Amino acid sequence: MPGRILMTDHPWVEVEIETAAFVAAGFELVAGPIQTPDAKWVEDMVDRHDPVAIMTCWAQVSAAAIQRPTSLGIVARMGVGLDNIDVSAATRRGAWVTNVPDYCVEDVSDHAVALMLSLWRGINVMDRNVKAGQWNPADARLERVSGKTIGIVGYGKTGSATARRMTQGFGCKVLVISPSLLRQHAVGTQLADRSVVADLATIQQNADAIVFHAPLTPQTSHLANDAFFAALARRPLLINVSRGGLVDNDSLIRALDAGKLAAAGLDVIEGEPAPPTSVTLRSDVIATPHVAFSSHASLLELRQRCTQEVLRVLRGEAPQYPCNHPDRPTHERSGA
Amino acid sequence: MPGRILMTDHPWVEVEIETAAFVAAGFELVAGPIQTPDAKWVEDMVDRHDPVAIMTCWAQVSAAAIQRPTSLGIVARMGVGLDNIDVSAATRRGAWVTNVPDYCVEDVSDHAVALMLSLWRGINVMDRNVKAGQWNPADARLERVSGKTIGIVGYGKTGSATARRMTQGFGCKVLVISPSLLRQHAVGTQLADRSVVADLATIQQNADAIVFHAPLTPQTSHLANDAFFAALARRPLLINVSRGGLVDNDSLIRALDAGKLAAAGLDVIEGEPAPPTSVTLRSDVIATPHVAFSSHASLLELRQRCTQEVLRVLRGEAPQYPCNHPDRPTHERSGA
Repeated sequence: MPGRILMTDHPWVEVEIETAAFVAAGFELVAGPIQTPDAKWVEDMVDRHDPVAIMTCWAQVSAAAIQRPTSLGIVARMGVGLDNIDVSAATRRGAWVTNVPDYCVEDVSDHAVALMLSLWRGINVMDRNVKAGQWNPADARLERVSGKTIGIVGYGKTGSATARRMTQGFGCKVLVISPSLLRQHAVGTQLADRSVVADLATIQQNADAIVFHAPLTPQTSHLANDAFFAALARRPLLINVSRGGLVDNDSLIRALDAGKLAAAGLDVIEGEPAPPTSVTLRSDVIATPHVAFSSHASLLELRQRCTQEVLRVLRGEAPQYPCNHPDRPTHERSGA
Repeated sequence: MPGRILMTDHPWVEVEIETAAFVAAGFELVAGPIQTPDAKWVEDMVDRHDPVAIMTCWAQVSAAAIQRPTSLGIVARMGVGLDNIDVSAATRRGAWVTNVPDYCVEDVSDHAVALMLSLWRGINVMDRNVKAGQWNPADARLERVSGKTIGIVGYGKTGSATARRMTQGFGCKVLVISPSLLRQHAVGTQLADRSVVADLATIQQNADAIVFHAPLTPQTSHLANDAFFAALARRPLLINVSRGGLVDNDSLIRALDAGKLAAAGLDVIEGEPAPPTSVTLRSDVIATPHVAFSSHASLLELRQRCTQEVLRVLRGEAPQYPCNHPDRPTHERSGA
């Protein structure tokens, strides 16, 4: 019997890319559903198929699922974050944990700019009105993008990609902040993408739009709370394409009601996949269902890179994107 | 009695900017409605108020309206196009016709990019789904913008502004075409904004999105007809922010149904202000009500510049943006 690879879930329609690569290498793919199954389902599948590798998108891969296989080489996240994998259980049993970094930098940045432009140019509201039979150009309350100041909170590759779009594409002024930026540069330093390092107060005071590209950490959890919104001076847009937990939903609603914020574009919302309708149903909120990472190009890249990473480990090589240091990694044991 | 200035219509709520400037200069402003009145209404207002200047946005200013005033110095278009003004009647009676060029270059370009991004990132459809209680990221069929090829038909200042956004902001390849470009440059020439001069067949063959920034002329009327759509190779988006008449609505519907076109973003539609619902109600069409020119910044600039142009002529100076050569212009007669 060939070694089996368990894919716990796959939020895309078919698994032909993965199947073709694994079959060619002498493995068999067991693919779970499109909708995320629970941890128990994953454990049952592990018991039934005794996989040599587990690939997961959103499904929980528990310590039990990781401990039970006879010979597990890798738990590969089809994505970036690792919060659904018991990494230390994998480390203890000598299995690699890997992810696929940077596959969706351009996509998330595209999505952030799309949300910003949709709000400033009234696309959603006006399309809805035209579809309802109204054609009232005089009702338009739209904004010119050039000349706006954009504040970007979180300045990794994605934050920089958004900065480039807004400075070089649209002629905006861009202020950026992140802990590592503030360690490396003085406030006011201009970076290669023409954005300028700023402190949070300067962003709150000057930004016409604030884009969250920051990870969810104890420091960023509910960063956008009542105090954050109270300090906004120019009634900006809020764009969140990172994690819902950065924004306190109740504070957001109060800020919109009070006019501290003009509108919000949210790809992530605390409470997803069932976010509060008190947020999503507002006409000054545009919401998309956590898809900023997604495009035909990004999914293809994600799937191919994750498949190759699994095969690399199963061939006995070290992975390209290790996220742990296994106690006795597969590729050392398989040296014989 | 002070000289009166007739503003036939104004698709913005108040006329304080204009009133303040005219009163300060010793004139009186008579302002028409927000919704466009007909030519007869304008003629009646001329008879009643005997204006020294007429400002118009969308209302027809007929030969009769132009001939009847005792002393008419200027017919000022609050906008760019002159199709609602009888220019030769003004020329014959010695009145200037003026417009306000370039006040909305950035806005129209912003709007074109907003429509493109909304379609590629699924913003309208997914916001509608989330508002209907659905949160299905696996349904997303989204596109990464970088790496796309954008065809821009019509390469004035607005076309170039869109080219800059897409090349320098998003890292796209941009192909551009216009009659004057093809007279001045060989196909394949790279321009300063990094776009490349192309013929129409190359754009049809290679573009992932085609943006219309061209004026409506006999040559461009129904440019997007059955033959145009049949030559598309990559199932592009169509974005129209110039004039509805460039696109044959029936051909557009056939192209969408046949899959020659992925979707359309339309700020202008033949038949507006009551465009066919067979176009607007489609889920693969986003429509906005001819507002690409509009923003707080552009309207302010438009109103201030048009007001100053009227005052310039009424002071006896030549206008800054003349669109005719009056037989006996006001500023020469008023030399005494």
